[in-house]
Amino acid sequence: MTETVKAPPQVSWQDPKGTRSVPGGVTAALGFSASGIAAGIKSASGRLDLACLFSDRPSTWAATLTTNRFAAAPVKLARTLLRQGGPLQAVLVNSGNANAATGPEGDRRARKVAAAVAKVLELPAGRVLVSSTGIIGRPLPADRIVRAVPEAVRTLEASGGAAAAQAIMTTDTFVKEAALEVLIGGRTVRIGGMCKGAGMIHPGMATMLAYITTDAVVSQGLLRRLLSAAVERTFNRINIDGDQSTNDTLLVMAGGASGVRIPAAGPERVRFAAALEEICRRLAELIVRDGEGATKLVEIVVSGARSDADAHRVADAVANSKLVKTAWFGRDLNWGRIAAAVGYAGVSVDPEKVSISLNGKSVVAAGRGVPPTRMARAAKEMEQPVLRFVIDLGLGKGADRVLTCDLTHEYVSINAEYPT
Amino acid sequence: MTETVKAPPQVSWQDPKGTRSVPGGVTAALGFSASGIAAGIKSASGRLDLACLFSDRPSTWAATLTTNRFAAAPVKLARTLLRQGGPLQAVLVNSGNANAATGPEGDRRARKVAAAVAKVLELPAGRVLVSSTGIIGRPLPADRIVRAVPEAVRTLEASGGAAAAQAIMTTDTFVKEAALEVLIGGRTVRIGGMCKGAGMIHPGMATMLAYITTDAVVSQGLLRRLLSAAVERTFNRINIDGDQSTNDTLLVMAGGASGVRIPAAGPERVRFAAALEEICRRLAELIVRDGEGATKLVEIVVSGARSDADAHRVADAVANSKLVKTAWFGRDLNWGRIAAAVGYAGVSVDPEKVSISLNGKSVVAAGRGVPPTRMARAAKEMEQPVLRFVIDLGLGKGADRVLTCDLTHEYVSINAEYPT
Repeated sequence: MTETVKAPPQVSWQDPKGTRSVPGGVTAALGFSASGIAAGIKSASGRLDLACLFSDRPSTWAATLTTNRFAAAPVKLARTLLRQGGPLQAVLVNSGNANAATGPEGDRRARKVAAAVAKVLELPAGRVLVSSTGIIGRPLPADRIVRAVPEAVRTLEASGGAAAAQAIMTTDTFVKEAALEVLIGGRTVRIGGMCKGAGMIHPGMATMLAYITTDAVVSQGLLRRLLSAAVERTFNRINIDGDQSTNDTLLVMAGGASGVRIPAAGPERVRFAAALEEICRRLAELIVRDGEGATKLVEIVVSGARSDADAHRVADAVANSKLVKTAWFGRDLNWGRIAAAVGYAGVSVDPEKVSISLNGKSVVAAGRGVPPTRMARAAKEMEQPVLRFVIDLGLGKGADRVLTCDLTHEYVSINAEYPT
Repeated sequence: MTETVKAPPQVSWQDPKGTRSVPGGVTAALGFSASGIAAGIKSASGRLDLACLFSDRPSTWAATLTTNRFAAAPVKLARTLLRQGGPLQAVLVNSGNANAATGPEGDRRARKVAAAVAKVLELPAGRVLVSSTGIIGRPLPADRIVRAVPEAVRTLEASGGAAAAQAIMTTDTFVKEAALEVLIGGRTVRIGGMCKGAGMIHPGMATMLAYITTDAVVSQGLLRRLLSAAVERTFNRINIDGDQSTNDTLLVMAGGASGVRIPAAGPERVRFAAALEEICRRLAELIVRDGEGATKLVEIVVSGARSDADAHRVADAVANSKLVKTAWFGRDLNWGRIAAAVGYAGVSVDPEKVSISLNGKSVVAAGRGVPPTRMARAAKEMEQPVLRFVIDLGLGKGADRVLTCDLTHEYVSINAEYPT
């Protein structure tokens, strides 16, 4: 388990049109405050393990939640809140204990913690969402959390986003935040978020823990549609180890403090949607960059497939292959393993039509490796920290992309030693 | 790449009724001879890399071949021979080069090698099957192999099974052989085999390289039916890293030198089928025991599923989880990761009905961990070299089992450093 918090990687993001990167995360939007405190859940080490996020007014919200059948108690509670459709105003997140596989008693404890937050914040019941991340199958120390709630509320600050982002970390090595300003009808709205990730991440589910806030006014229906589209292209396209957590939660809250309404259609909607997707993309990429033990960020682009779904399956097979991922760690181009993964993805493939390139340099043409001198040029790219493989199947117009990382000694160490 | 050949593990197999374990592998059956020589394909190190297997008479045969779309040239050639339906009499296997992703030139080279073997052995064309295993995407050194064929043929011996088994190894650390005698109508027939495995192994396909011989008289049709049933319960139920090779081949040849015919129905057929399945099981288990870097052999039994197919998906999800497999390596029971994998397998699961045991000791009952003292007893079992997890979903009568191993530092080392 990592004890130190590193500086986040220096990434030069490209801002979508009409948006501008700004510092911060969940408290970049007006009307939101946050805190991160040490409640003694992780251990007696004094590490931050309890985060609170508060909106000074009722917020519309949207969420995607894990599809895992062993969904954790807080996820089940969130599903109930989603169905009720009322506004949300506060979120309490603990790290160090997942409150998963804890049975009806786990459900009771999740509700107890949520009720304690509502009481201290003087909110109606049902306006508080709770999340948990950490060890599965241990009873949630609900009393300890409940006792810490007053401090978590007292320390809420408009600049508290970073502390909250640190408090939700488990094996993460750096704080993950992103924020943008967006021009809507000549006025500025803000959108920002935080997340935690590391292991147990695979496309096709509702991600890890991520919280996004905006001070725009967005109807609940529109917010849910926008989130679902953004997730499909971002969080559902990252893969660290192919595992899926029992606790994955992605939440977006729109408080409306800017007074600027996002219309249901037109260019303003498009611009806001792009900003939301960009925040999702940045948070998702930070998660992959902090993949447990990862030394390389790898983008798999598949084109020329019979369908987008085929392209996705191929990208996923490559991103999920232990043989491919260990080769990357060894800085070994080993394109044969990539070809093998393409071949077992279960989609139409004509080997003679497959081409593969790495960082723009040709590796495979017509199903065969390029000549040695060209191959050596491509192989040199394996030294780069960011690898972009383009796999063209030469069969149609289907395309997709997945972000992933390598499989390293450090991954094995982290996960062989993570305490249960 | 492993340079040393270890002694095979001491396993006390249980002999099916009417059978008896005997030493040896592919040359345990009468009428078969084999050889293993160093042809300089792997490197100039003098390691064995070319195996020849010969039947003194035309044999009926059956084979299952990889479903990978990037099927290697020798696999494509084998498919052609299978379709033609004629008898088989010799097999030449090289390690060190997979002759995969080598295009039409690779196909030509595979045919060239097969033709050379037929010529030296004075066999009609079409009675020789070739196999290749090793690096993908490099031109097969066909001329070097062709030059070595006379020596491979000259050194054929009725006791040559072990040398052949060694010559087909890649990252394997020990020779994999098994043989049984079977009583059929009061007379003895022999059945034995060899295989190579290590990485790139996953259920639902046609295995790695495995060769089985028998001196029973078996019709081609019966042999194919028996093989297909045996594979489904053995080779298709093992998993090392979830990857699938471009070269997987399992071949069985029935030469008939014993003169004992296996009838199409009745107890004699059943007994022979059990022996064939047992050879497949032993070879498959040896492959898992030699999983790249593996320190534990793990059996995942899933019962109480809605269907056998559901049970298979759950067993596979658990066996394929990097988080679960690294925990095993860390001797960490971490049943929450197993529960999470059960939860994302994509089948009907009611967490409250799930129970899990390890080596007969209860771990999870009604979806929750057992009390600490009982959990500690189960956790102690993690020190054992063989782990048997029984996961009961409590929903129906579907069941399945998968053999797998842990994911270790050594796996990462082997696969980060295997040369391309």
